[in-house]
Amino acid sequence: MGRRSFNRMLWGGAAVASLSKAGRGSPAASQAGSQLRVDGEWLNKTLQQLSRFGRNDLGGVSRVAYSPEDVQGREYVQGLMKDAGLDTSIDAAGNLVGRRSGGRSGLAPLLTGSHIDTVPEGGNYDGIVGSLAAIEAARTLNKNNLSLDHPLEVIIFANEEGGQAGARALSGRLMPEDLDRLSHSGMTLREGIAVIGGDPRRLDEVRRLPGQVFAYLELHVEQGPVLYSEGIDIGVVEGIVGIHRWMVTVQGFANHAGTTPMDRRQDALLAAARFIDAVQKAVTGVEGRQVGTVGWIEASPGAPNVVPGRVRFTLEMRDLDWDKIDRLFVQLEQTASQIGQQTGTEFTFEEIYNNPPRLTDSKIQQLISQSARDLGLSRQSMPSGAGHDAQSISHIAPVGMIFVPSRDGISHSGREFTSPQDVTNGANLLLHSLMALDRAAL
Amino acid sequence: MGRRSFNRMLWGGAAVASLSKAGRGSPAASQAGSQLRVDGEWLNKTLQQLSRFGRNDLGGVSRVAYSPEDVQGREYVQGLMKDAGLDTSIDAAGNLVGRRSGGRSGLAPLLTGSHIDTVPEGGNYDGIVGSLAAIEAARTLNKNNLSLDHPLEVIIFANEEGGQAGARALSGRLMPEDLDRLSHSGMTLREGIAVIGGDPRRLDEVRRLPGQVFAYLELHVEQGPVLYSEGIDIGVVEGIVGIHRWMVTVQGFANHAGTTPMDRRQDALLAAARFIDAVQKAVTGVEGRQVGTVGWIEASPGAPNVVPGRVRFTLEMRDLDWDKIDRLFVQLEQTASQIGQQTGTEFTFEEIYNNPPRLTDSKIQQLISQSARDLGLSRQSMPSGAGHDAQSISHIAPVGMIFVPSRDGISHSGREFTSPQDVTNGANLLLHSLMALDRAAL
Repeated sequence: MGRRSFNRMLWGGAAVASLSKAGRGSPAASQAGSQLRVDGEWLNKTLQQLSRFGRNDLGGVSRVAYSPEDVQGREYVQGLMKDAGLDTSIDAAGNLVGRRSGGRSGLAPLLTGSHIDTVPEGGNYDGIVGSLAAIEAARTLNKNNLSLDHPLEVIIFANEEGGQAGARALSGRLMPEDLDRLSHSGMTLREGIAVIGGDPRRLDEVRRLPGQVFAYLELHVEQGPVLYSEGIDIGVVEGIVGIHRWMVTVQGFANHAGTTPMDRRQDALLAAARFIDAVQKAVTGVEGRQVGTVGWIEASPGAPNVVPGRVRFTLEMRDLDWDKIDRLFVQLEQTASQIGQQTGTEFTFEEIYNNPPRLTDSKIQQLISQSARDLGLSRQSMPSGAGHDAQSISHIAPVGMIFVPSRDGISHSGREFTSPQDVTNGANLLLHSLMALDRAAL
Repeated sequence: MGRRSFNRMLWGGAAVASLSKAGRGSPAASQAGSQLRVDGEWLNKTLQQLSRFGRNDLGGVSRVAYSPEDVQGREYVQGLMKDAGLDTSIDAAGNLVGRRSGGRSGLAPLLTGSHIDTVPEGGNYDGIVGSLAAIEAARTLNKNNLSLDHPLEVIIFANEEGGQAGARALSGRLMPEDLDRLSHSGMTLREGIAVIGGDPRRLDEVRRLPGQVFAYLELHVEQGPVLYSEGIDIGVVEGIVGIHRWMVTVQGFANHAGTTPMDRRQDALLAAARFIDAVQKAVTGVEGRQVGTVGWIEASPGAPNVVPGRVRFTLEMRDLDWDKIDRLFVQLEQTASQIGQQTGTEFTFEEIYNNPPRLTDSKIQQLISQSARDLGLSRQSMPSGAGHDAQSISHIAPVGMIFVPSRDGISHSGREFTSPQDVTNGANLLLHSLMALDRAAL
């Protein structure tokens, strides 16, 4: 199974009253609840079953949103939800919702879930672990006749990898113009939403206002190397980093590489190279976990025998501290100006993406951390460097996130892997955090 | 007209005997010959006429080899040759040859010419100045009833821009496998040669052996900024630089740009950037006119939010001193190894092109320089950073090259320009150098 053994205890339905019936905070109920565990074997087996829909030759899964594989995968998952005792429906944005009543009336629902769509040539864990763990948490409660005070909604958000389309619809942030964008499927969002059973004309109905959601909790694989390499079970997510992205253009002068002496060149690629090195120096030159990346570059005209006259590349910086990104960018603009003077080139920066950080709720962080300790799981606080559905939901409700290790930090790849033990750990922590959250005042 | 005025003197046919008749080296003939000038007005007007064939919206000419424009341009030029008293023919490689008998029997022909094909979206000077000046030199001799001792052959080489196909055929260096390569026209060389009147099955007949060509002299625009920016009339070409070209691959590891901390990255683009800066430092770190260029680059997977796992780029170095290029390359390999260690990446170098330098004949250089002095033209010795037909011919005969200024050093562009005065200067120098060469012992 994995690195750690644990006691699995399945409560007999007759032996245990529901948590709400047993009375919140009673020592008996707490002790009984603390023994509750998900069925890790079922969960990991189900994870493999779902991977049939879109499995590819690279050892991973291609199940882009709105594709036939996505539709099939969602049907399979909807069946799992029903088996777990959830009332299923598809909202107008195509989100797959499984609902379970709460024990007390008048409370806003507690949400949990993630997504099952993948990037093209993606893996079988990103989003999927959190989706199936949410269903298994509900199934475990159901099997044990336990109800929470709040209604529980397990949500499989539609098209996360295409910009959190489903989660943004829920928080009222999917704009009409977004519907005309192409998704990985080749369809527009408008077309895709209809294909998976939504109705793009009724998106307003999906929107939830602040107060209408008690909280949202999401389990996800880290997609980075920190937990795995340091041998830590759980990441308690402090927030989702802000992403600031620019298209940088360096204008020089294209010239014949044979006939133009070195001291007469205005080589845009030389200037870009010096800047890329400067990004590394600036980003690592101050304390913290900020990252800066140049991931795409193009030199024009792009021939071996022509001095590049123009280079374009992307610059991306991410951190939980938005002001720090601003300061680094100002510093890099100055560096670019100096490099421009050295090389006879000119830099221009066009902002192409700007998504500020979203912090998770500090009280939910504490609940997760406490639950992890009770389960005997090692943990550390960390930012999420990747975007998640929780990011969109954070605009309308307090959110929390739980990370489990990704082997070698690899994601968006057929080599993406999280051990069955870590999957089970995450699901147990999700279950216990949901139960703790249900009783908490936020 | 241009920067400098000059005396134009047209000799009456009756007034002057041919140079060979007047006796080589006689003071009268030398003095008479020194007054001979091309018709600059005719030459520059003809240059404009030829530009009709392929003129484009960018102010330049698109007349790629074997295209309909090339065929039309060649027909026009063949007419000019006939008008200049040349016996024209098309050889099996498609070279357009205009021949004039020599005054003494048994001598190998003196060759001059260039090409009239252009790169896609090229200019109206590269190759064309040398082609029309060669015709005008012959026309001037003809108008004045002057014959050289050696037969004179004006050659418009076929498909220079596609790798000196015609010139290589003449020197026996066009290989059978080359015939299957695609040219800019979309046709293979085999197809294209037939379209312009050659016969790809009879290329062997085109080949000339060492001794069968007395010498080759080519006028060309510099295609670089040196003469223009320094206000010098003439470049006496010392040789055509060798070109050594590599495909460099940097292998790192692709990772999520949000979730991978800076100190855990193996960023192939960061490594490539440091190397590109190192190329500049190495090439400019030693005395000389060597150049080094990175003109093409590609980062994979090439997304703003992915740390590049692999980068490929071209490295090109050029110089007349081949050993110097070797030493620089060894130095850069060591630098790459150090950068690889710093960044967790690995560099590999694949040689993709290797064309050693070709020196011009030192005696021809002296003749050109002397003739320029006699014509009152300022001059300097310099390498050719670009390839030329002379490069291919140098394998079978002594060659010389004359450069005239390119405005702002621009070539392969609609903005390519050489002033009418400079065109005329070049043609006069070509004429006088041919006459001097005719009488020289090489």
